[in-house]
Amino acid sequence: MSVISIDRIEQFVYQALLKSNIPEDHATWVAEIYRQATLRGVGHHDIYNFPGRLKSLKTGIINPKPSLLLLKEFQTLAQFEGDNGLGEVCSWHIMEQAKKRADIFGMGLAVIRNSNHFLASAPFIEKAAEEGYISILYTHGAPLMKAPGRKEKVISACPMGFSFPSSGDFPIVADFCLTYASGEQLGAKAQAGEKVPSHWGVDAEGNPTTDPKIMNSTGARSGIGEHKGFAFSMLAEVLTAVLADGPVIDEPHPQTGKTGIAMQTAIVIKADGLVSGDTLASRVTQMLSRLDARAPGIHIPGKSSYDSKMRIEQNGGIELKQGLIDTLNGWARELGIEGLE
Amino acid sequence: MSVISIDRIEQFVYQALLKSNIPEDHATWVAEIYRQATLRGVGHHDIYNFPGRLKSLKTGIINPKPSLLLLKEFQTLAQFEGDNGLGEVCSWHIMEQAKKRADIFGMGLAVIRNSNHFLASAPFIEKAAEEGYISILYTHGAPLMKAPGRKEKVISACPMGFSFPSSGDFPIVADFCLTYASGEQLGAKAQAGEKVPSHWGVDAEGNPTTDPKIMNSTGARSGIGEHKGFAFSMLAEVLTAVLADGPVIDEPHPQTGKTGIAMQTAIVIKADGLVSGDTLASRVTQMLSRLDARAPGIHIPGKSSYDSKMRIEQNGGIELKQGLIDTLNGWARELGIEGLE
Repeated sequence: MSVISIDRIEQFVYQALLKSNIPEDHATWVAEIYRQATLRGVGHHDIYNFPGRLKSLKTGIINPKPSLLLLKEFQTLAQFEGDNGLGEVCSWHIMEQAKKRADIFGMGLAVIRNSNHFLASAPFIEKAAEEGYISILYTHGAPLMKAPGRKEKVISACPMGFSFPSSGDFPIVADFCLTYASGEQLGAKAQAGEKVPSHWGVDAEGNPTTDPKIMNSTGARSGIGEHKGFAFSMLAEVLTAVLADGPVIDEPHPQTGKTGIAMQTAIVIKADGLVSGDTLASRVTQMLSRLDARAPGIHIPGKSSYDSKMRIEQNGGIELKQGLIDTLNGWARELGIEGLE
Repeated sequence: MSVISIDRIEQFVYQALLKSNIPEDHATWVAEIYRQATLRGVGHHDIYNFPGRLKSLKTGIINPKPSLLLLKEFQTLAQFEGDNGLGEVCSWHIMEQAKKRADIFGMGLAVIRNSNHFLASAPFIEKAAEEGYISILYTHGAPLMKAPGRKEKVISACPMGFSFPSSGDFPIVADFCLTYASGEQLGAKAQAGEKVPSHWGVDAEGNPTTDPKIMNSTGARSGIGEHKGFAFSMLAEVLTAVLADGPVIDEPHPQTGKTGIAMQTAIVIKADGLVSGDTLASRVTQMLSRLDARAPGIHIPGKSSYDSKMRIEQNGGIELKQGLIDTLNGWARELGIEGLE
């Protein structure tokens, strides 16, 4: 493990992207997203995913210079073509587009098709909350969630997030999928030899299992609250795939035949017309105080990320695994940029 | 049990409301909501709740002639005063207001404070889906959900619903709260002497329990997916209480000192600007076909209500318990309207 400053990580991402033919503005966006995602200290869906992005850019799996064309729009609503660009670029773009519309109309919704993996919703929506917006960001994925009482993987696990401002140290940020655990979380449990609650999913025969490895492979994951999570995922499918005019569920892409293509949808509310920005933030903080008065020390979504950020700032950087540093330095040599240490 | 036609039920509600000093337009709205709610065949949050409304109107707990004042608005956003009117009147009003804004801007959000119990989200959002809208309806309530890993009731269980059109026989309608089971459902389980899964909630000491009665009284209910349901309820608290400029969590009302006052928020999307109404509906149906191809016979939210509606139409009416009929006939005598049989 080596401690690398967050500025250095952001700079590294920016330079590596430029050398991978990403335009300057897009590289700036993506570098900021990797900075913010890495500050969360989760250890995945952050800088650990970056080598994969560089590989996809090198092999042409992802288009470094996408034309983010506006396909259709109507007042608050906008539909974009992602042109197989980085998911981080596509998601940044629709967040900004939704915010722009929210500034004018109070609400905005922007959806993008032919996108890619967006890392996580947190860095995008956290930024929006710091700018005073209430926001929700959905991503569409391949079927991984089962239906209630069934065993077949039928619908996206619905990775999503939402966020709103507070007047405290950090905005409220929730970022998760709508199954009990994500594939990554089940993988980590499996590696640690841990069991998981049997209501989290089933084995290949549809029987309850406590084995995260089975649940994550031949079995299937349950939606939170069974029919409730399943219904939420159906809504997300409509807000992403249907509004994007893209492929639904496991439908093949009309040109490429690929399935499970990422699409993102950003919904943004600028509530200034109803309550001022200051009032919104202070009322959220009063809500937190009321919660805390009923259950002192309650955990608030966004707190872990904030603590991690503070820790990283205090330590002058974040500890990265040597394996990641070696991989990134390999890319540095290949792309002709300065390595991490 | 007696079979009463749904037209007769709607007419009864309308007449009883008129005699309870509800204005004609409001009575029409509420009668339609009771009709639609009762057609769902749930046996609660429908005509079975109507005697309680008549009592609240008689005793002055609910204001029969509320002034639904527009307090603030900005393009897509509108904030209303509910003036202690019927929750069904307040919710109908904000659904119409949100639709009106969605027609102009593609999206609309209307929130109302000082409202009352709205029965259920289903009849409101089902109507919106039949009119071609995607909609979400939240209601705010007293703290009943616990925080993850805790035992205290801290936040609303977040009764809510969402709906969107399909080109099949019925729109997709999801109506539920964000705990595993509602208070009514736990009550029914307790009465039937049934146990419930231990992840649904805790006893007074915060230990897992399978006793629905304890979970529903001295204990507390868990949010679906624990921190996930809890975070969703926080978002709902912001979208209802904060945007309504009303009391948050257990805050007393500034004038009356009451807590747990109902507030509703309607969010409506008219997606015509991105995909036509016909395309939206047919793409939803194609999504359902894809789901069904992966797991044949899958249950779709809205199907039970549709089946109930068909059954009631076929039977020429719905079977109501004699106790309810007696109670309603008691009200008929008191209000000077024709009884149910």
